[in-house]
Amino acid sequence: MIELYHNAFSSCSQKVRIVLGEKGIGWKSHEIDLQGGGQHDPEYVKLNPNHVVPTLVHDGRVFIESTLINEYLDDEFPNPPLRPGDPVERHAMRLFVKHIDEKVHPAAGVITYGIATRPMILGQPPEVQEAAWSQIPDPARRAARKSVIENGIEAPEMRGAVGAFIGMLDEMEATIDDRGPWVCGEHFSLADACALPYVLRLEHLAMGSQLAAGVRPRVARWFAEIQALESYEEMISGQLLAPILAMFQKNAEEVRGELDALIASL
Amino acid sequence: MIELYHNAFSSCSQKVRIVLGEKGIGWKSHEIDLQGGGQHDPEYVKLNPNHVVPTLVHDGRVFIESTLINEYLDDEFPNPPLRPGDPVERHAMRLFVKHIDEKVHPAAGVITYGIATRPMILGQPPEVQEAAWSQIPDPARRAARKSVIENGIEAPEMRGAVGAFIGMLDEMEATIDDRGPWVCGEHFSLADACALPYVLRLEHLAMGSQLAAGVRPRVARWFAEIQALESYEEMISGQLLAPILAMFQKNAEEVRGELDALIASL
Repeated sequence: MIELYHNAFSSCSQKVRIVLGEKGIGWKSHEIDLQGGGQHDPEYVKLNPNHVVPTLVHDGRVFIESTLINEYLDDEFPNPPLRPGDPVERHAMRLFVKHIDEKVHPAAGVITYGIATRPMILGQPPEVQEAAWSQIPDPARRAARKSVIENGIEAPEMRGAVGAFIGMLDEMEATIDDRGPWVCGEHFSLADACALPYVLRLEHLAMGSQLAAGVRPRVARWFAEIQALESYEEMISGQLLAPILAMFQKNAEEVRGELDALIASL
Repeated sequence: MIELYHNAFSSCSQKVRIVLGEKGIGWKSHEIDLQGGGQHDPEYVKLNPNHVVPTLVHDGRVFIESTLINEYLDDEFPNPPLRPGDPVERHAMRLFVKHIDEKVHPAAGVITYGIATRPMILGQPPEVQEAAWSQIPDPARRAARKSVIENGIEAPEMRGAVGAFIGMLDEMEATIDDRGPWVCGEHFSLADACALPYVLRLEHLAMGSQLAAGVRPRVARWFAEIQALESYEEMISGQLLAPILAMFQKNAEEVRGELDALIASL
């Protein structure tokens, strides 16, 4: 049996869910409340010592790190294959994923906490705020989290973070070609699974039309193809609670002017 | 034809060389002079936009990132296989490699520059020193490099870096078991290729006997097995120039007292 400890909005959880969905693998859901600190629960930390989601458990064996979980799922459940068969294209896929994992993933935390969830967190008592970020084990992630909660869109981390997203979109616009709508050509792959949560996050933070639809037609076409996948609704959009999406949108609109200026300056 | 742009002492170059050697793949060497700034040469940067070694070129196609190069080599030249056939063990191997890439690799730069090459660099004119680190594109790596050159063993980065090495050795001591001498059991794998340069670096910085031989018998046995590999001399030890090894050893011995105190405090 496959069990997934995950969160509806977590980028890395979404990467694994869409792969489970496209492979048609049945799974049991254990949702982790990230705002409530479920990722720091000692029982959960035994499964995932990095205090993050997702964690996949397959017949009692524990797998962490979304990119490596997806490689595992493609090794263990090879149909349909979600990695290119050709070693050259497979390397290109892994390089794209590595770039997103290293540059875009940390940036997603910065823009999400700095724009979307900051007003809610600032409304909490100071000791609750501090408890939330002080439990993040990685010092760099902890410092960035604190900075964006304190400074919002003015945080020094914000410029690099939005820049990382733009870099990803530029790379996608250059990589997606007329062979097919996907990052690695005509087949949906782990590269697309990896990019999905971040393009979706831009959409949730009201930057989609500005950064994709209008100016990057290949990314816009790619995003439409992703949303048309058979498992998209069950695994992605159907899991996202409307009041939280509305809060993201509202909080993003409130800093629209600063956000536009930041994007224009990059 | 396989060409490798690499450096004898570079950890990530060693990871790829030992894999080429163990697979018996012929290759053409292009050595990059890292102290002379060859990695920043505009012609080289066209191949490797991250300004690092190694870069592998196979029949004109370019591959970067040592871990992904090794996955490519195992995809393209599958014999002998250097990844476990079992998906569960393959995930464990990739998790070990990911941990080393993220935590130990940056730490290797810190201890090498802060202990072994610092006296030589401090003997250079200030503008040469500045030119060397100012070309590092990643801001975090650039700041760490500057700090350890300025502060040596007193740099705030040093404690975490030595701690990352100790964490790796502890993990190896726990992982290597009686099934076989290697990280993933009875067969040499990409996990061993990935760990090799860092255990070797401790040896070069005169920390080997203190951290492995005396106190971690499984790591010590593993290191003896690595050195007994058929390709070890050609690909690793035979490439390392004796005067540079002597300089590493001498500079490490000069901070022996501080280093011992740091290790004892961890």
